[in-house]
Amino acid sequence: MSQGGAMGERDLIRRISEILGGVENDDCAVIDAGDRYLVATTDMLHRQTDFPDIMNPWQMGWMAVAVNLSDIAAMGAEPAGVLIAAGLPPEADLYFIDELFSGFGDCAAYYGTRILGGDTDAHQELTITGTALGFVEKDLVLRRRGARVSDLLCTTGALGGAGAGLRAWKQGELQSEFIVKLLEPEPRLKEGRLLAKSRAVTAMMDNSDGLALSLSDLSEVSRVGFVVYEDRLPIAPGIEETVGHEEAIEMVMSAGGDFELVFTVKPEELEAAKKAGEVTVIGEVVEEGIWMERAGERRRVQGKGYEHRIGGSKID
Amino acid sequence: MSQGGAMGERDLIRRISEILGGVENDDCAVIDAGDRYLVATTDMLHRQTDFPDIMNPWQMGWMAVAVNLSDIAAMGAEPAGVLIAAGLPPEADLYFIDELFSGFGDCAAYYGTRILGGDTDAHQELTITGTALGFVEKDLVLRRRGARVSDLLCTTGALGGAGAGLRAWKQGELQSEFIVKLLEPEPRLKEGRLLAKSRAVTAMMDNSDGLALSLSDLSEVSRVGFVVYEDRLPIAPGIEETVGHEEAIEMVMSAGGDFELVFTVKPEELEAAKKAGEVTVIGEVVEEGIWMERAGERRRVQGKGYEHRIGGSKID
Repeated sequence: MSQGGAMGERDLIRRISEILGGVENDDCAVIDAGDRYLVATTDMLHRQTDFPDIMNPWQMGWMAVAVNLSDIAAMGAEPAGVLIAAGLPPEADLYFIDELFSGFGDCAAYYGTRILGGDTDAHQELTITGTALGFVEKDLVLRRRGARVSDLLCTTGALGGAGAGLRAWKQGELQSEFIVKLLEPEPRLKEGRLLAKSRAVTAMMDNSDGLALSLSDLSEVSRVGFVVYEDRLPIAPGIEETVGHEEAIEMVMSAGGDFELVFTVKPEELEAAKKAGEVTVIGEVVEEGIWMERAGERRRVQGKGYEHRIGGSKID
Repeated sequence: MSQGGAMGERDLIRRISEILGGVENDDCAVIDAGDRYLVATTDMLHRQTDFPDIMNPWQMGWMAVAVNLSDIAAMGAEPAGVLIAAGLPPEADLYFIDELFSGFGDCAAYYGTRILGGDTDAHQELTITGTALGFVEKDLVLRRRGARVSDLLCTTGALGGAGAGLRAWKQGELQSEFIVKLLEPEPRLKEGRLLAKSRAVTAMMDNSDGLALSLSDLSEVSRVGFVVYEDRLPIAPGIEETVGHEEAIEMVMSAGGDFELVFTVKPEELEAAKKAGEVTVIGEVVEEGIWMERAGERRRVQGKGYEHRIGGSKID
């Protein structure tokens, strides 16, 4: 934290956590609800900073729900409903509002849950705060802590698609197949639930801010390190052909928006974990540091995913 | 709804509810959680429209939590935690952030609960979305529906204090005792819980948007009417002396911010309800309409509390 500089989101969260007497660093808050845990998460999105300008209102609605359901997935939980608070700008006509709220409802329904209620008011810039709720059996809940040295590091799905979509958007290649990946993310609820039930997983989170930052967070909470085997990364098909290998790896590590699950597995239970769907082993848990291994050589990875910066939070 | 005009918040909510396939109109969403109900509510507040300019950051934090806890109180529930999503403007320095988050934490702690987590990012205008969670026994939950003809209409506490605070603020009378009432609302969690346990209450909500609008909402959901006896209204001491009787009544009916509980009670169980604290009978449930009775004469009340208007939501 530099004198007078902007404070990174994670530094700020640390400070706030101290003020509040400690806030557990997981994708969701965990609350005792009798024989199960209630898990809850909230995420605020703004028109200019969170929604690419090519997004239609239905996609904005979909995304606002999807990013929260991804956090429910990361805990191994079953969704129980979503609340939406929406600040609607003056230019939002009824077409916009209908599409936006259809997007909320369609995403929730696609994942077997629904919009329970919320709050609407007027605001200069479209701002949407989604809150997702879920339940998970106490002995199945998955957290960021729990990874142990020599566990296998795994991911669901393919990586880098959202990053490639972001690049395509910025370059005006709006026919790219990756654009949809960026604009209509599909959180891994089914996979998260199956991974929890497999009892093979020791720690989990989503990679919504990029793989590097996820590994940094898992590393901090689990107090371990990771080595990633570069040639095992399941880069989404078509990316390397378009941007080359180096930039594809950069997208996997640093671009946000993929919404896959990153998790660690006890080596002897890998087969059980694989039943959850498309699971790839991409590395393993080591004592310390975050490393990328290529051709037998390891180099350190900086935690440099997509981190929102909070401007003007001065240190005096 | 006039052609081309702005749409009122309640009209918009009706439309959105249709899109989402029906959203129950209560202070909180109600979710099955085994042997209890989970209740959940969310509320988005903005610097310019929701926080008087004399508010300090600690008070903003307090209010963002208090308005949500009031909804938990209105269901007869016990709070289980609060999530906060905060969009922080560039001018927010660390003093501001520390005070704001202390306000969140202090309000939660005052009511025996805590901030579970949340989300922070950067936003042009300070925007805070609080989400409160609670639990209530299934046979004790209180809703807006359930009021029956000849039930007694009651309120907790005294009314009009926040309205008087609003007036004092606008007139620059910053030493007024009512300013604190406006800036540091105290939701009725203890009373809400005791009212639920009394089993005397048939319907309940908070009066955060003014008594008239609360009665309008209760009336719509319970499909009944209300008569309010003007001389029984517990006007907060000091208001009539300052602004006169007529304006005091106007503050009670139309000004937001009091955060008392408005509820209906089976007449034979009034004594049980009164054990919840400062409870005043202000009227009774009738077949239809909302009426104010003064000196034996009834006149109709328009539902005209503090309703946010959503600008530019055009009807085509």
